[in-house]
Amino acid sequence: MAEIVTAAMVVIGDEILSGRTKDRNIGHLADIMTAIGIDLKEVRIVPDEEDEIVAAINALRARYTYVFTTGGIGPTHDDITADAVAKAFGVPCEYDAKAYSMLAESYAQRAMDFTDARKRMARMPRGAEHIDNPVSIAPGFRIGNVHVMAGVPAIFQAMLDNVLPMLRTGTKLLSATIQCPFGEGTIGGPLAQIQKAHPDTIIGSYPKYLDGKFWTELVVRARDTAALEAARAEVETMVAGLAKTGQ
Amino acid sequence: MAEIVTAAMVVIGDEILSGRTKDRNIGHLADIMTAIGIDLKEVRIVPDEEDEIVAAINALRARYTYVFTTGGIGPTHDDITADAVAKAFGVPCEYDAKAYSMLAESYAQRAMDFTDARKRMARMPRGAEHIDNPVSIAPGFRIGNVHVMAGVPAIFQAMLDNVLPMLRTGTKLLSATIQCPFGEGTIGGPLAQIQKAHPDTIIGSYPKYLDGKFWTELVVRARDTAALEAARAEVETMVAGLAKTGQ
Repeated sequence: MAEIVTAAMVVIGDEILSGRTKDRNIGHLADIMTAIGIDLKEVRIVPDEEDEIVAAINALRARYTYVFTTGGIGPTHDDITADAVAKAFGVPCEYDAKAYSMLAESYAQRAMDFTDARKRMARMPRGAEHIDNPVSIAPGFRIGNVHVMAGVPAIFQAMLDNVLPMLRTGTKLLSATIQCPFGEGTIGGPLAQIQKAHPDTIIGSYPKYLDGKFWTELVVRARDTAALEAARAEVETMVAGLAKTGQ
Repeated sequence: MAEIVTAAMVVIGDEILSGRTKDRNIGHLADIMTAIGIDLKEVRIVPDEEDEIVAAINALRARYTYVFTTGGIGPTHDDITADAVAKAFGVPCEYDAKAYSMLAESYAQRAMDFTDARKRMARMPRGAEHIDNPVSIAPGFRIGNVHVMAGVPAIFQAMLDNVLPMLRTGTKLLSATIQCPFGEGTIGGPLAQIQKAHPDTIIGSYPKYLDGKFWTELVVRARDTAALEAARAEVETMVAGLAKTGQ
């Protein structure tokens, strides 16, 4: 019996919504989730506004197995993710003793002031557990099913690597890709019939447009190898048949 | 008096959530909205599932001036955006006479069958207006404040260009960027004070990490030039002061 594990992502930051920064974390999380057998079902990008962050986190943590957030955990006034997550869980946001002492020691070693701004990075919702940050020390955290991570891609990726061993994973969605030289208008009819005949698969059609011509990537996905191969064979037969008739 | 116009985006497609396709439309829409004076406030990426699309569109169209969608308007069985938008508005989804005859003529000229799959691209919610598609004919559409466009970036961009002249725009959010050689921990305290002293601006701090060292891009935004310049001057003075003390 296939086990389904789901996830959602909240990307926090005005800079993504203004276009100033182009997100690189959504694609990375999507790739990793697919690779380990977790279905990423929804992503929301929200501004640096507490009510918006709280609403997104509460909506998604109730619906999906896991929630992953990026952004807003640095030391400046616009970094409000820890407060928002605490509010979403109805717990106080306070200095975490372990994070505080790790950061204090790190700055002392580097002969830098442990400023109030830097101390902000030791704040997390009461009861949260650390997500280690091998790049720049200041930890992310997990509370309930919500994993709070940095927005800087190198740090996000490192934190996510630390989270993965803790996640329950489902039956992987296997996939097979068939390159198809025809546009969707040509294959749409027969492809829909194959989908209907193989309800235990998800057949996707991704149009590509190059040099004035459409072609498609056809992707069959299933949690079961036999189901996948049966549908894949039919799709390949369809494409070969169209090639013969020169549609 | 500054006028605020807002927007949200719904990106529709399993292929983005699986990581197979890396979205390039969010960043483009964000750039364009910022350039013309519309605040992009939220983005949701949802799967090819009718209920999810309906829920996202109804949540966002009620809250924001405009909603823009990408994806799911092609000819295959997984292209269900037109049906979902019709359902969201409580109107039937039906063949649009103008779109139908445009497509019929285009395929006839190219000596290609106007298949049932291709006919799907002429379906739209009753009462919708076309958004012209100069790339591949099949139109997008607008209904109410919702603009439904293609997911293929070249087509999305062309459709968006056609939509822009129809949009009401607000007072542009001006911005000034100050490169800062210090990490957020150094500037966090003084920057928060500047933000507090300039409530009519939005001051953002965007950490960059390169070769083991943090630096930041500081961005001051405001709808009023005088407000922008006053805050910018203070941020520049702060950075220069820190450089002198060699923090």
